[in-house]
Amino acid sequence: MKGNWCRAFFVDLSKGTSEVHKLPEEWYRDYVGGEGVAARLFLDLACDGPDPLSPENPIIFAAGPLSGTAAPCSGRCVAFFRSPATGTMGAANAGGHFGPALKRTGFDLLVVTGAAEVPKILVVDDGEAKIIDAQDLWGKGISDTEDSLKKRLGGEGWQIASIGPSGENLVRFAAIMTDKHRAFGRGGPGAAMGSKKLKAVAVRGTKTLPIADPNGLKEAAKAAREELFSESFVKDELHPFGTPSFYDAIEGLGILPTRNWQRDEFPESRELLGHKAYHDTLDVKPYACYGCPIACGRHTRIKKGPFEGLEGGGPEYESVAAFGSKCEIIDLEAIAAANHWANDLGLDVISTGQVIATAMEWFEKGILKEEDWGAKVTFGDVKGMLDLVPKIARREGLGDLLADGVMRAAQKLGPEAEQAAMHVKGLEMAADGVRASKGEAVVHAVSPRGADHLRPYASAIDAFGYREPELGIEGEIHFAEDGNKEWIKPFQELSMATNMLGVCLFASITLAIKASTWAKLLSCALGRTVTKDELLERAEAVINLERMINARFGFTRKDDTLPKRFTEELGRDGRGAGEKVNLDVALDSYYASMGWDKETGLPTKETLCRLGLDWIEIEEGPC
Amino acid sequence: MKGNWCRAFFVDLSKGTSEVHKLPEEWYRDYVGGEGVAARLFLDLACDGPDPLSPENPIIFAAGPLSGTAAPCSGRCVAFFRSPATGTMGAANAGGHFGPALKRTGFDLLVVTGAAEVPKILVVDDGEAKIIDAQDLWGKGISDTEDSLKKRLGGEGWQIASIGPSGENLVRFAAIMTDKHRAFGRGGPGAAMGSKKLKAVAVRGTKTLPIADPNGLKEAAKAAREELFSESFVKDELHPFGTPSFYDAIEGLGILPTRNWQRDEFPESRELLGHKAYHDTLDVKPYACYGCPIACGRHTRIKKGPFEGLEGGGPEYESVAAFGSKCEIIDLEAIAAANHWANDLGLDVISTGQVIATAMEWFEKGILKEEDWGAKVTFGDVKGMLDLVPKIARREGLGDLLADGVMRAAQKLGPEAEQAAMHVKGLEMAADGVRASKGEAVVHAVSPRGADHLRPYASAIDAFGYREPELGIEGEIHFAEDGNKEWIKPFQELSMATNMLGVCLFASITLAIKASTWAKLLSCALGRTVTKDELLERAEAVINLERMINARFGFTRKDDTLPKRFTEELGRDGRGAGEKVNLDVALDSYYASMGWDKETGLPTKETLCRLGLDWIEIEEGPC
Repeated sequence: MKGNWCRAFFVDLSKGTSEVHKLPEEWYRDYVGGEGVAARLFLDLACDGPDPLSPENPIIFAAGPLSGTAAPCSGRCVAFFRSPATGTMGAANAGGHFGPALKRTGFDLLVVTGAAEVPKILVVDDGEAKIIDAQDLWGKGISDTEDSLKKRLGGEGWQIASIGPSGENLVRFAAIMTDKHRAFGRGGPGAAMGSKKLKAVAVRGTKTLPIADPNGLKEAAKAAREELFSESFVKDELHPFGTPSFYDAIEGLGILPTRNWQRDEFPESRELLGHKAYHDTLDVKPYACYGCPIACGRHTRIKKGPFEGLEGGGPEYESVAAFGSKCEIIDLEAIAAANHWANDLGLDVISTGQVIATAMEWFEKGILKEEDWGAKVTFGDVKGMLDLVPKIARREGLGDLLADGVMRAAQKLGPEAEQAAMHVKGLEMAADGVRASKGEAVVHAVSPRGADHLRPYASAIDAFGYREPELGIEGEIHFAEDGNKEWIKPFQELSMATNMLGVCLFASITLAIKASTWAKLLSCALGRTVTKDELLERAEAVINLERMINARFGFTRKDDTLPKRFTEELGRDGRGAGEKVNLDVALDSYYASMGWDKETGLPTKETLCRLGLDWIEIEEGPC
Repeated sequence: MKGNWCRAFFVDLSKGTSEVHKLPEEWYRDYVGGEGVAARLFLDLACDGPDPLSPENPIIFAAGPLSGTAAPCSGRCVAFFRSPATGTMGAANAGGHFGPALKRTGFDLLVVTGAAEVPKILVVDDGEAKIIDAQDLWGKGISDTEDSLKKRLGGEGWQIASIGPSGENLVRFAAIMTDKHRAFGRGGPGAAMGSKKLKAVAVRGTKTLPIADPNGLKEAAKAAREELFSESFVKDELHPFGTPSFYDAIEGLGILPTRNWQRDEFPESRELLGHKAYHDTLDVKPYACYGCPIACGRHTRIKKGPFEGLEGGGPEYESVAAFGSKCEIIDLEAIAAANHWANDLGLDVISTGQVIATAMEWFEKGILKEEDWGAKVTFGDVKGMLDLVPKIARREGLGDLLADGVMRAAQKLGPEAEQAAMHVKGLEMAADGVRASKGEAVVHAVSPRGADHLRPYASAIDAFGYREPELGIEGEIHFAEDGNKEWIKPFQELSMATNMLGVCLFASITLAIKASTWAKLLSCALGRTVTKDELLERAEAVINLERMINARFGFTRKDDTLPKRFTEELGRDGRGAGEKVNLDVALDSYYASMGWDKETGLPTKETLCRLGLDWIEIEEGPC
């Protein structure tokens, strides 16, 4: 492989040293790059099962072979770590410009181990690393941190990934933020970084990317952009209106999580939280990550009221649902304010909104009591919701309980708290329903990083009706069917492939850019032919690799669960009305298609053998 | 993979530090172990093309997955390095007990980099390493070095690999010796070790080997031993008489290199150098490496004459031919003395005998002149031959010229010296003819480490007539045919497989133990099924990997040559009388069967792709 694609920059914060390691080219052949190579490296570095908040937990930032290239949507970067939220592997994927900048330093992986004694910043400038003091920045929000640090470093071209107070305070769903508003969001990478006393990573790169066939790649990229914009969802929704347009579609379909998932319709919010209201209420500018023609992101400024002038990235759909419908709040300015605050505090907005919605239900049910906490927060309570956001980040009062996530809070509160604790494996649910997509039910249960709607975004198939002949996803697939889940596998592979390539899931979960087109782009980057089938098989290998990593941390079929609300309570309204999830049936079908053992939920020896992974042992000695 | 099979012990002599590195399990899957994994690691460590005598040249000692197990002939260990003789990769493979002891330290690879300022010894005691001073041992012979070091270290179970004065003096064909008389012999590993000022490596291990299915392995080993002794060559020749019995067979067939390859018959030596004379003249005891039921080695003591009482390992067949027939010397006691001296001085006996035979021809032709060197050495000159051995080791007079090998000596002496310089790529010929085995002609030309009769021992097929249906080697194969060399490939794979497994070539080049039996033994060791075809394919991958390593050092088809004696001069007597080698025809056939490009002699992209090696670039930046 040409040039610098196997070079990883290792920084040990305990020792204050950095080293360049050449990773095995076989890893780039077998796991392609990005999340694939990061997962493989993590298996070695974390084989002892480190405490997620210990110096031994590595954080691996990984760009992919297409990151920063002419391929569309190629601004992605993954952070890989053991999750403080779940104890599983963590993989949090951010857009913006950090990945391409990392790539241009001459490395595609930046590996941080150890922990500093006082707050530090890691600066990687074109292949040179230094670790500088950050005591003046500790406590600062994301925006101030980025601005101060860029000023201090001087010059142009710096990209920053940093944590806010929530990461410093080890909030288990703290994010690492980049470009101020893009998040390595899920699973608590900010807490892992905070436990290392690492306030920020600043990278600047000026090197040329090693593309084997730049002209071929440009041509393939052109074709990919055409595919992207021939998909009407991209052209007519995502590009002109961004993710806020999802709100109308999802609420309209009756699959919008409302009142902490007790409802799936929220018709009273349509006029006030839909994307028309969004563009009327807020001063909106589109935002694009590196190389992205979609520009799904939105930058907003609140035009009036108590938060007039407050601005930032989003709120995206997930944030509108998290602080809005889940909390039964119909106040877009308050939702935008909660979003902007959470981003600046370095909180994952999805988990933050969910823990607040859960707290609301706990107060409703008397599990949390006003007399114990000095105040209560109820559904629709705008002030209560807003107050909790900084309290969580600073671990004040009730915020301290919620900062460990709904699973741990419920464990402290007793068994009756579990029903409202909407999580899988300790990670809070996003805003994508599992009653109205039994595919999504499987995805949430089996995702290697806890409740996750994106591996793959199964709703696209069984709720929105997309089909993809190239993946063999054709014909009748009904949202309510518990069995016949074999169509998830190829879609999951395509989604994983994008995470390995360093490109955006929005280009694959919309089924706009085809797997064969990604394979072509990769082939041009590498200078050797990688077929669609090979790419998908390698993605399957990484899916299995991650499954085995979690197995080594003790996760098996027993942990592939859903909140009881979905398996025990019937849906009250919306598309899933009268439905519940028969998870065992769905998992049986899915495991069979994956070649995973029905009892353990782990890859069979045959499956591991077929994928070249049969050397992985679940039980192993120290690293 | 269970246990300690991916753990490599890295020692940096420049820094005086040691570290344990976990190597990627994929390497053990793709390259099995032993020479395979060593080659793969070498590709990374030596990607800059280090000077073979510089601190940057790594020396990798590698045991295989069967080394030290109940498998028969499992005492082998490879030393991998860049060869001071050829500038190609170097792989020198020794028997004895060093490999099994290394394996029991908890590591299968010991990697030495850097260079010490004063002579040192590396001591690895069950996973603990220390570097101790060796100034008192510098200058000592192998036997004294082993004895002194064992006494100094105390206790039982030490295995030593050390260099003699020839390694210290950077003789380009200096060996690393172990168990006093077993040699990491070819390509000058002793010089590479000498350039690091590393006198010896001492290892002691008490750990249990991680065998997945010990009972299965024992059973398979029993079957393997039965296969071994059902082969009459093993049972009736190699076991009772050792390698000296080859002398009779090879001379009888008319393929014995005599008078520096000017003759291929030496009938006047039959009575005096054959194995009957050997056992009459010398006091002979059999010697077995670890776990070897063949015990092909011989320990001899000279019974009478000027060398009475001198003892040591060998002379083996190669040594009898090197100091005997090649020099037209018919004095077994002198040959044994030269052999014992060379071993103790840490010289490769094959190259040593060859450079002396070449020097004899140069004197004969007036290219070397008595007046320049104070003396001459002629064919049949016992005293002259004996005198040269220590002179080469100590680089005295003519010995200094010869210590750089026949290629470099010929370059200094002028073009007329080339015809007698019997080498390929700078490594001297062993004693196995290429005129009477056109397969051996190809093997010598293409071997990755210079003139080499063992990758594979093609004579077994086209000179001695062995066939192996399991490898598809069947039917008429005539020694004199230049084309149709496709039968070499599977045999070469079997030979490479044994080097990867850590077992002895004598068990495979005799075609006694079948490829499927080795695959079974490996499967029991690993606890997963590896088929014969998979094992051979992985061996093919390592063959191609080594070809690519050499390509990065500048070696292509242009370097796949033979001494002109074989391509220009017709054989005068013996089986190859009237024959010469049409190397181009033979190479065309061989390259085609290997999937190597006819022009460059390098693996085609398709071949690399098929073997999972297409990530290897010939041109690459620094490590």
